[in-house]
Amino acid sequence: MEFSLERVQQRSGRPVYRQIADEIRRTIESGGLAAGERLPPIRDLARRLGVNRDTVAQAYEELAASGTVQSSVGRGTFVACRPGAPQATAFHLRFAPTAERLLAFERARPRFGTAEGAVPMHSLIPDPSLYPADGFRRALNRVLRDGGPDLLLYGVPQGHAGLRSALSDHLSRSSLPVQPDEVVLCHGASQGISLALRLFAVQGDAIAVEEPTYNNVLGAALALGLQTAPVPMRKDGLDLVALERVLERPEVKVLYTIPTFHNPMGTTTSRRHREALLEIARRTGKPIIEDGYEMELRFEGRASPPLAGLDRSGLVVHLFSFSKSLFPGARVGALIARGRSVDALLALKQATDLSDALPLQAALADFLESGEYGRHLPRLRRLLRGRRDALLDALETHMPEGTRWTTPEGGYQIWVELPGKIDTSDLLADAVAGGVLFAPGSQFHCDGRASRCLRLTFAMAQEEELRVGVERLARVVRDRLRCAPRRASRMLV
Amino acid sequence: MEFSLERVQQRSGRPVYRQIADEIRRTIESGGLAAGERLPPIRDLARRLGVNRDTVAQAYEELAASGTVQSSVGRGTFVACRPGAPQATAFHLRFAPTAERLLAFERARPRFGTAEGAVPMHSLIPDPSLYPADGFRRALNRVLRDGGPDLLLYGVPQGHAGLRSALSDHLSRSSLPVQPDEVVLCHGASQGISLALRLFAVQGDAIAVEEPTYNNVLGAALALGLQTAPVPMRKDGLDLVALERVLERPEVKVLYTIPTFHNPMGTTTSRRHREALLEIARRTGKPIIEDGYEMELRFEGRASPPLAGLDRSGLVVHLFSFSKSLFPGARVGALIARGRSVDALLALKQATDLSDALPLQAALADFLESGEYGRHLPRLRRLLRGRRDALLDALETHMPEGTRWTTPEGGYQIWVELPGKIDTSDLLADAVAGGVLFAPGSQFHCDGRASRCLRLTFAMAQEEELRVGVERLARVVRDRLRCAPRRASRMLV
Repeated sequence: MEFSLERVQQRSGRPVYRQIADEIRRTIESGGLAAGERLPPIRDLARRLGVNRDTVAQAYEELAASGTVQSSVGRGTFVACRPGAPQATAFHLRFAPTAERLLAFERARPRFGTAEGAVPMHSLIPDPSLYPADGFRRALNRVLRDGGPDLLLYGVPQGHAGLRSALSDHLSRSSLPVQPDEVVLCHGASQGISLALRLFAVQGDAIAVEEPTYNNVLGAALALGLQTAPVPMRKDGLDLVALERVLERPEVKVLYTIPTFHNPMGTTTSRRHREALLEIARRTGKPIIEDGYEMELRFEGRASPPLAGLDRSGLVVHLFSFSKSLFPGARVGALIARGRSVDALLALKQATDLSDALPLQAALADFLESGEYGRHLPRLRRLLRGRRDALLDALETHMPEGTRWTTPEGGYQIWVELPGKIDTSDLLADAVAGGVLFAPGSQFHCDGRASRCLRLTFAMAQEEELRVGVERLARVVRDRLRCAPRRASRMLV
Repeated sequence: MEFSLERVQQRSGRPVYRQIADEIRRTIESGGLAAGERLPPIRDLARRLGVNRDTVAQAYEELAASGTVQSSVGRGTFVACRPGAPQATAFHLRFAPTAERLLAFERARPRFGTAEGAVPMHSLIPDPSLYPADGFRRALNRVLRDGGPDLLLYGVPQGHAGLRSALSDHLSRSSLPVQPDEVVLCHGASQGISLALRLFAVQGDAIAVEEPTYNNVLGAALALGLQTAPVPMRKDGLDLVALERVLERPEVKVLYTIPTFHNPMGTTTSRRHREALLEIARRTGKPIIEDGYEMELRFEGRASPPLAGLDRSGLVVHLFSFSKSLFPGARVGALIARGRSVDALLALKQATDLSDALPLQAALADFLESGEYGRHLPRLRRLLRGRRDALLDALETHMPEGTRWTTPEGGYQIWVELPGKIDTSDLLADAVAGGVLFAPGSQFHCDGRASRCLRLTFAMAQEEELRVGVERLARVVRDRLRCAPRRASRMLV
């Protein structure tokens, strides 16, 4: 497609996405793009034009809304057969703008396809061979036999009382003193993120996030019409000076943070950093959503109390998850909050999906009370430590000079910064071909911009696989470094 | 509390809720309300002032935000101990305005308390004695044994393929021809409602709803910052003239409707009405969310095709639920949609909570495939028909002259209109004392205004209980009718 950046920038009276849409329409009309032909992927065109991916996505949405193009998830955007004339039988449904933006966001996710034999170091999904599946099945069978049909009623929005009690006992003994009535069970910590965001922010508001941050929180914010205000991550955690500036902005309503085993970086902040962060939140009057999704997985060093444990003002909503410490399939997470925040979270939960499935919550309660969860955790931690060591060792042995990485004390992920000017998104296709998968750093950026970093996980791959994976990655990186000067010309972060 | 309507209306430059908050503040300062004293319930004050309940709720929220009053769910709103001075240790968290409004909405729900021995005709929760709990437990045990730990992984956002396939087979044979890839499983039809609303509308938009309508859809809309545009229900369904006028309004993005076994009315529309409704939706370009939550429960008469079955333009998103035909505790519902709507719903589902619990979906698939669900339905329908007949019979025998009611051909609910000028919300306390529970009509109104109607259900109560319940209800109504002229002076709808 012939397409000039200059032309777009010159006519500055019109929004840029409209200008892009106009250009594409003109190209189609002049025969530069034929019916059925594929438009360039959003990220490619955004790069070529030096604009945000959202801008291109909006242009494509406008073209789709007018029937000029048709989009299909995972396949791309194509010139419609009869541009401008919607099909007689197909009614044009107008989606909410957030839904349209979310579709564009989903289209921009990296697709790994069927990379058979590739070492899976991209995923944070724990290896099913680690799940105590049989014990859980027996617990489920037991609670359903004892509970009978009453367990198949709606639960209350707060969730199964036995699990709230067992979980607060467990947390109080380990990391966070908490009362059962401060626990709101939810449909995975993912739902917890959405509910907590909705507690503090509505469409048009902004949320402060670490950058890089958990990519699904970016999707959750987008789906709620929230802007993201990125705050840079340092080696020791959030840049607190930048944080204060961001939290002072009136449109920023809340901070989402992962102080322990950060995703994607794997780093953990000190107690001192946590206290300073809380003081900034108090000073600026902004609450904190603390995602503690991997907090159960410390295999080394001493834990600092979570933000929720240091908070004396009730400004922290803490997220707990069973998805990483046990398995994700029960879809059980928890919000831990105080006072009116509990009431408001319950109202939001009720308005969203009434309640969760009691049988799964009851089975987890049984699993905690019987001590089976308590016996599972040290086994898992030992195994993870071995995997981390194998991964660190392989990085040391194989990666080219100038590569840097973090050393997590728990969790499943390591953050790697490559030398030179490699955009890790560009590297992904080579890596897939070379038999190794990773998560490119750009997907953890609010604006999806290029990154020389990548996340490696030891959730799915075992020790020997990790060694092979890093060897393959190192080869791919060296190959790229040899031809880097020609390929990379942009500034990378 | 001394409080004058005139004073509020005279100073018209300021928003009414602010004026109300000012008046309350003044009353507190002048000693008219002491620390710890309770403010009037929102609905009472709204009535006295002749304003919307939301307006009063907003005033209370403002007062709470400034520390003048404190609210507590289920207990009420109280003058703070040191009005204006927030407690030194308690940080004042500022919630999103939608969360505050939702708290007020939850506070206004009728509370039935512990009405021991009262006949439960208020609830739409099916009687647990009807659940095939043992069969489900066995199915769950079986699929977990066969599926092993892989069933405890995250699912895909669309849900378990086997259940999508079994459900589309089942629906295609009964009411709605559908392909497995048109099915998006969700966490109960309640989550389906939220997702479908978010597909079409964002904060500030409006949704058209029947009036009366399912009260939880009003909560879901409120939680999403959506306005509701009520369209009156007639005996034969939505008033189509009024509907067209409402759907023509640009801010109204979608219609939520229950054409089969309407909640709360129990009525079902004709095929002709459905076709006319679809034509209006096409003409105005507005999509439809069709809630088919009780469609499996027809025990009499012949079914018209659902809107989704008559729709040739892909403008209907259909909601299916297992909560009423089987049990609610699996939290499995389904959205049935076409084309891009499926993609967008999947993106919303992913951004909301990633995926549902596979074990429960797999067990339901087993339950459908083994024919157990198919054998359960006719048993349930037979039983419901008996209950409905008992209820109709009791109404005929006991209720005072002038009482009118609907005759549902399926589902769990009957809509009763009382003679005279009784506000059924006012009647509820007497009914609880008299040993019978019902849902007052006001809770199905967008603005919560008074109603002379009430919903009786035969979900929880068995035939003999239903007879006793109606006898008790009739007594309470007669008592009230005797003193009605003094009590009721407002127009009722």
